[in-house]
Amino acid sequence: MARDPKYDILFEPVKIGPVTAPNRFYQVPHCNVLGHARPHAEAANRGVKAEGGWGVVCTQEVEIHPSAEITPYIEGRIWDDRDIPQHRLMTDAVHEHGALAGIELCYNGMHSSNLYSRIAPLAPSAIMVHGDYPMQARAMTKRDIADLRRWHVEAAKRARRAGYDIVYVYAGHDMSVLQHFLKPQYNSRSDEYGGSLENRVRLTREVLLDVKEAVGHECAIAFRFATDELMGADGLQAESEGRDIVGMLAEIPDLWDVNISGWDNDSSTARFEPNEGYQEPYTAFVKSLTSKPVVGVGRFTSADMMVSQIKRGVLDLIGAARPSIADPFLPRKIDEGRIDEIRECIGCNICVSQDMLAAPIRCTQTRPRARNGNRTGIPSVSMPPPAMTRCS
Amino acid sequence: MARDPKYDILFEPVKIGPVTAPNRFYQVPHCNVLGHARPHAEAANRGVKAEGGWGVVCTQEVEIHPSAEITPYIEGRIWDDRDIPQHRLMTDAVHEHGALAGIELCYNGMHSSNLYSRIAPLAPSAIMVHGDYPMQARAMTKRDIADLRRWHVEAAKRARRAGYDIVYVYAGHDMSVLQHFLKPQYNSRSDEYGGSLENRVRLTREVLLDVKEAVGHECAIAFRFATDELMGADGLQAESEGRDIVGMLAEIPDLWDVNISGWDNDSSTARFEPNEGYQEPYTAFVKSLTSKPVVGVGRFTSADMMVSQIKRGVLDLIGAARPSIADPFLPRKIDEGRIDEIRECIGCNICVSQDMLAAPIRCTQTRPRARNGNRTGIPSVSMPPPAMTRCS
Repeated sequence: MARDPKYDILFEPVKIGPVTAPNRFYQVPHCNVLGHARPHAEAANRGVKAEGGWGVVCTQEVEIHPSAEITPYIEGRIWDDRDIPQHRLMTDAVHEHGALAGIELCYNGMHSSNLYSRIAPLAPSAIMVHGDYPMQARAMTKRDIADLRRWHVEAAKRARRAGYDIVYVYAGHDMSVLQHFLKPQYNSRSDEYGGSLENRVRLTREVLLDVKEAVGHECAIAFRFATDELMGADGLQAESEGRDIVGMLAEIPDLWDVNISGWDNDSSTARFEPNEGYQEPYTAFVKSLTSKPVVGVGRFTSADMMVSQIKRGVLDLIGAARPSIADPFLPRKIDEGRIDEIRECIGCNICVSQDMLAAPIRCTQTRPRARNGNRTGIPSVSMPPPAMTRCS
Repeated sequence: MARDPKYDILFEPVKIGPVTAPNRFYQVPHCNVLGHARPHAEAANRGVKAEGGWGVVCTQEVEIHPSAEITPYIEGRIWDDRDIPQHRLMTDAVHEHGALAGIELCYNGMHSSNLYSRIAPLAPSAIMVHGDYPMQARAMTKRDIADLRRWHVEAAKRARRAGYDIVYVYAGHDMSVLQHFLKPQYNSRSDEYGGSLENRVRLTREVLLDVKEAVGHECAIAFRFATDELMGADGLQAESEGRDIVGMLAEIPDLWDVNISGWDNDSSTARFEPNEGYQEPYTAFVKSLTSKPVVGVGRFTSADMMVSQIKRGVLDLIGAARPSIADPFLPRKIDEGRIDEIRECIGCNICVSQDMLAAPIRCTQTRPRARNGNRTGIPSVSMPPPAMTRCS
């Protein structure tokens, strides 16, 4: 079967800074609890999406320094040069199918308890960390801020050497120190990094510019930003500071990856957000403030809805986490006129619950492919079979 | 300085089946959340104890089959031949210093939720699994029992190929299917594996004999057994069935590793069990019923107390988990007359709490040794530095 011409627009290439995505299907960063402990499985998990037609495939969040690590949760790490080979597994797997590989650099700050490294977590101000384990983050000194900028630059350079095409700066889901600086609820600093919005944005702007200077000649710089926290005046709002921040940073990144915060809002279950594109009211404004391409999510599984997002000027790239988990071959099925074969994400969020348990990702809609192409006897698994998850 | 002659008895070799421990210092199996995800760190953690003078150094529990895996907790795995190389790292590290290497084969059964493999857990009878995640174990069929015996045999053969000197059969801490069969609270079978004590012991006896036949010509077979659950008549009691079981199996294993169940009893904090050797009232009887050597724990840090255990005929080998974590060099310090330098375990149990968090082991008494011999900047860590914990 052949592609319906009305979907041709989804298969147009999109220039993102110095690189070009082969189409508009974009797997945004999402966690899978494979990461640094199971790098072969991580590479397989991302590679199969490239094989399935996603034009951009990203990592999960990748810790840039041991002073912000989220044990027992297992995501990515790029602490030093010794981590480069495991990332090369991922970028090779993605490039093999002609897709771009993106990496989400992350410094969790007060979202990390550092159970492994036992280093005091860092935050804009002295404050209790998130999570179940009681721990106090200390307020960052100017030296800490300089270190944080340097860690981002060093991680970005390693990411480029590992073969990534897109490097993220992250201020979303209440999980990143850059977002923590943006929020007056966490940031009570009296220096040039606290107080006014300009001051609270300062660190994000510096890191964006630092990373762009370091690797921007080869890699696209993406900025993942939560425009709203759905907390009304108690949090960031798209209608006020969310919009202001986009305006202030509009042309700095090569790509805006926009969503809502926290993760429970952004990856809401079908019970509470049954419709595709439910983030649109909070993110649609972004394209009006920047000339750079915009990617966003919305649990998109309908090709028609995707086309609508592009034609109405809401998004330039169709972001997906859950739909790419439920069906890594979603783009190819649209391309080949096999719409009815798409395994649609139902928003059950067992993928999220598995992450909360620090256990490798699963999905109610998928079964694993064994290496020999046969299905294994294990039901309801969205991951490579056990053989692919060992250290070697 | 030289060893005080009164401690000479601790440095006598002890024959254990076909192998011989070079002295009486025995690191019993204990978890550390390094295991299959961090095999180089696992090997380093065990190797340093051999370097410190422990005559026997064991793994943590090692899963023998994916149908009983304890994600998100990370312990050992020997699911198939591909796991042998990572175990070889451990046995090489231990053998390098002249110690014996032991492996605790374990089938967790209703103690496992199988969050990774998603296989229905197995138990003597249909019953709820332990743990926070709701899951039902199914009753084992005769075929399952045959499989379980075969999995033990196959794992034991792999363990021998990996270089282990001692292979465990495990019925302790309420974590092993063999113990689950022993307990009428879990075992309501009406066939020859349920009902009478002889019937409930049958599977343990079969597995012991199976493993002995498979590898007993080269490896010592250890049986780790909880003699009492400290639950009075609601659980296994040393004064009744605990004693009966030891009598029934007395000469089958080459070594008895005895303790109390569950782990909260066996690794009690100093707040509730301040004295060394607090397990003695429950385990001292074992030596009267078997001619085989007996090892047991008691948070032993005093060389005089250790000598007393041997001379009074309580134990033949001084078992330790926590004291070997707090000071891997404890035996060598006794040997060299440096008693005052021993870092004594204080029973704070931060090691246990870290395990409960599924995070790599820590200790309040130790600091890490970096590879170059210098201390790192990370305080209060009993583990190899991060560089040693990567997949490579």
